[in-house]
Amino acid sequence: MKDELILLSHGNGGEGTKKLITEIILKHLGNELLDQLLDSTIFNIESNKIAFTTDSFVVSPIFFNGGDIGSLSVYGTCNDLGVMGAIPLYLSLSLIIEEGLKIEELEKIIVSIKEAAKKAEVKIVTGDTKVVERGKGDKIFINTSGIGVLNEKRDWTKRKIEPEDLIIISGTIGDHGTAIMLERLGVEVSKDVRSDLSSIHHISIPLLEKFSGIKFMRDPTRGGVATVLNEVASSYNVEIEIYEDALPIKPWVKEASELLGIDPLYSANEGKILLIASKDEAEKIVEFLHSFELGKDASIIGKVKGAGDRVYLKTSIGTYRILDSLKRDILPRIC
Amino acid sequence: MKDELILLSHGNGGEGTKKLITEIILKHLGNELLDQLLDSTIFNIESNKIAFTTDSFVVSPIFFNGGDIGSLSVYGTCNDLGVMGAIPLYLSLSLIIEEGLKIEELEKIIVSIKEAAKKAEVKIVTGDTKVVERGKGDKIFINTSGIGVLNEKRDWTKRKIEPEDLIIISGTIGDHGTAIMLERLGVEVSKDVRSDLSSIHHISIPLLEKFSGIKFMRDPTRGGVATVLNEVASSYNVEIEIYEDALPIKPWVKEASELLGIDPLYSANEGKILLIASKDEAEKIVEFLHSFELGKDASIIGKVKGAGDRVYLKTSIGTYRILDSLKRDILPRIC
Repeated sequence: MKDELILLSHGNGGEGTKKLITEIILKHLGNELLDQLLDSTIFNIESNKIAFTTDSFVVSPIFFNGGDIGSLSVYGTCNDLGVMGAIPLYLSLSLIIEEGLKIEELEKIIVSIKEAAKKAEVKIVTGDTKVVERGKGDKIFINTSGIGVLNEKRDWTKRKIEPEDLIIISGTIGDHGTAIMLERLGVEVSKDVRSDLSSIHHISIPLLEKFSGIKFMRDPTRGGVATVLNEVASSYNVEIEIYEDALPIKPWVKEASELLGIDPLYSANEGKILLIASKDEAEKIVEFLHSFELGKDASIIGKVKGAGDRVYLKTSIGTYRILDSLKRDILPRIC
Repeated sequence: MKDELILLSHGNGGEGTKKLITEIILKHLGNELLDQLLDSTIFNIESNKIAFTTDSFVVSPIFFNGGDIGSLSVYGTCNDLGVMGAIPLYLSLSLIIEEGLKIEELEKIIVSIKEAAKKAEVKIVTGDTKVVERGKGDKIFINTSGIGVLNEKRDWTKRKIEPEDLIIISGTIGDHGTAIMLERLGVEVSKDVRSDLSSIHHISIPLLEKFSGIKFMRDPTRGGVATVLNEVASSYNVEIEIYEDALPIKPWVKEASELLGIDPLYSANEGKILLIASKDEAEKIVEFLHSFELGKDASIIGKVKGAGDRVYLKTSIGTYRILDSLKRDILPRIC
């Protein structure tokens, strides 16, 4: 099948779909649950407290430095569970493929999903495949939904954000968004340029087990760190101050952002955690993060002030400016 | 917002997305879980045995007689849970919208989702919204994933299909596929022409509670009844015989199928259950089905013969022909 192209008949629910599922999807992703090909998958779950999330991925291009739409679909959904304190266990995988996609490219994506699922320690247990006509889609869109388990200890949702709490980022900002933008421009780039795509629950879970002072966690994807902070400011009615000098930004991200006129604070990240923690624990959290490769650039980047609903950036020269949430579309189809 | 069109900025994760989510989606679908807009939704589930499913819907046209892509997305996923004996509880909702869709149309779809979720007694608890450029999608694609709970009594997956078991269909076949086909041709049709779209767990759950002789259940969507039966024949290594005379088919479906040269046995259904049950219970099951509006046309349509892997149709004139699974694509984007 490798040299072939996806046809509409691969989505008809009959022989074509069966062949595609067996020879390309189950070949790589098969497990005792997915192999049953039932209308829904049945399993026992050991905790009564579960987390559920969904994400559709429409990133363009589908292959980029540091990953592809397949690994993004796995890590993106695992991260949405991980920041809520849930250990990701089961994912669904639903493909909307444009007629004409090379089956070889599809297989490359499926292999990438397999490897990401292995690293993230999750199982793909149920799926769906649809095909749309040429010009009615764009190569491939992928939806993954995920189920994870959590416990009281790791559930931060009932804790209260207070003045003097500190804002922590687990690593450099803007890598994914900037890498995709450069990829799309088709310019030649250095080998440093790559998405930060990775799964963060291997650090978020031990963090939440260890530190009860963590009051908020999110992975700052579309809209970036600035947009998440604005959501916090308006949901929790607090003012937030961010220190420009404290922001960890890779040199190539800084350079490309200046050239392209974008702000890394608004660029998507795909392997970072934005945390809010009590003043007492913040430094210990950063220290703990530094013990992980994924957290080696972790920094305290700001703090929660009194009541309000705005985010301020204290610039390198000591002035303040309002950091709004994203208004324009700096780049569509980043994830 | 009603007169406006979807813009790329509605998918940027910032202000545009927030406005769309608040004013169109939460306005209709809001509940205590969805309103939190967290990266994943946390809830307690009372059973340890759960069912999980996913489906992406790409039906074209998005509005049709008997439903639209919104209600289809709810019922389709609930039905995948219902036929496995699971009571659907929680759905995710992920939208991939093409730039330029009228917000008025989107709202119509969201209202339809709301009404379907109410009828099916499920909650939309987590979601995602992406926007793709004009010409890179087709109005709207919707993914729903679903979680349901089940118990040992309703779990038929370990029962064994045997010779003499009977095949039952809960109602007329081919309604959905034929209605969509007529809709797409743009021909004027009588008011009888409509999809059979509905949720079937309100009948599948009591059926499974009452009859322990049910050994298989599936909703015969893409590929129709013939394709599901072929899957059964090859998975369970049995021969199946279907009686043409026993097939419940609405007059308009029969007529349109003859005109269009299609076979209702291969047309999609969206509110039907195909069951396999022990000989002893089959008649009682049909009787029980008749007590529901959705099951009023239920019939025994065939039986399981000895070992084999083929499905045969016994025609009205007494001859036999092999009923293969769907090979060609009779109609793309039926669901």
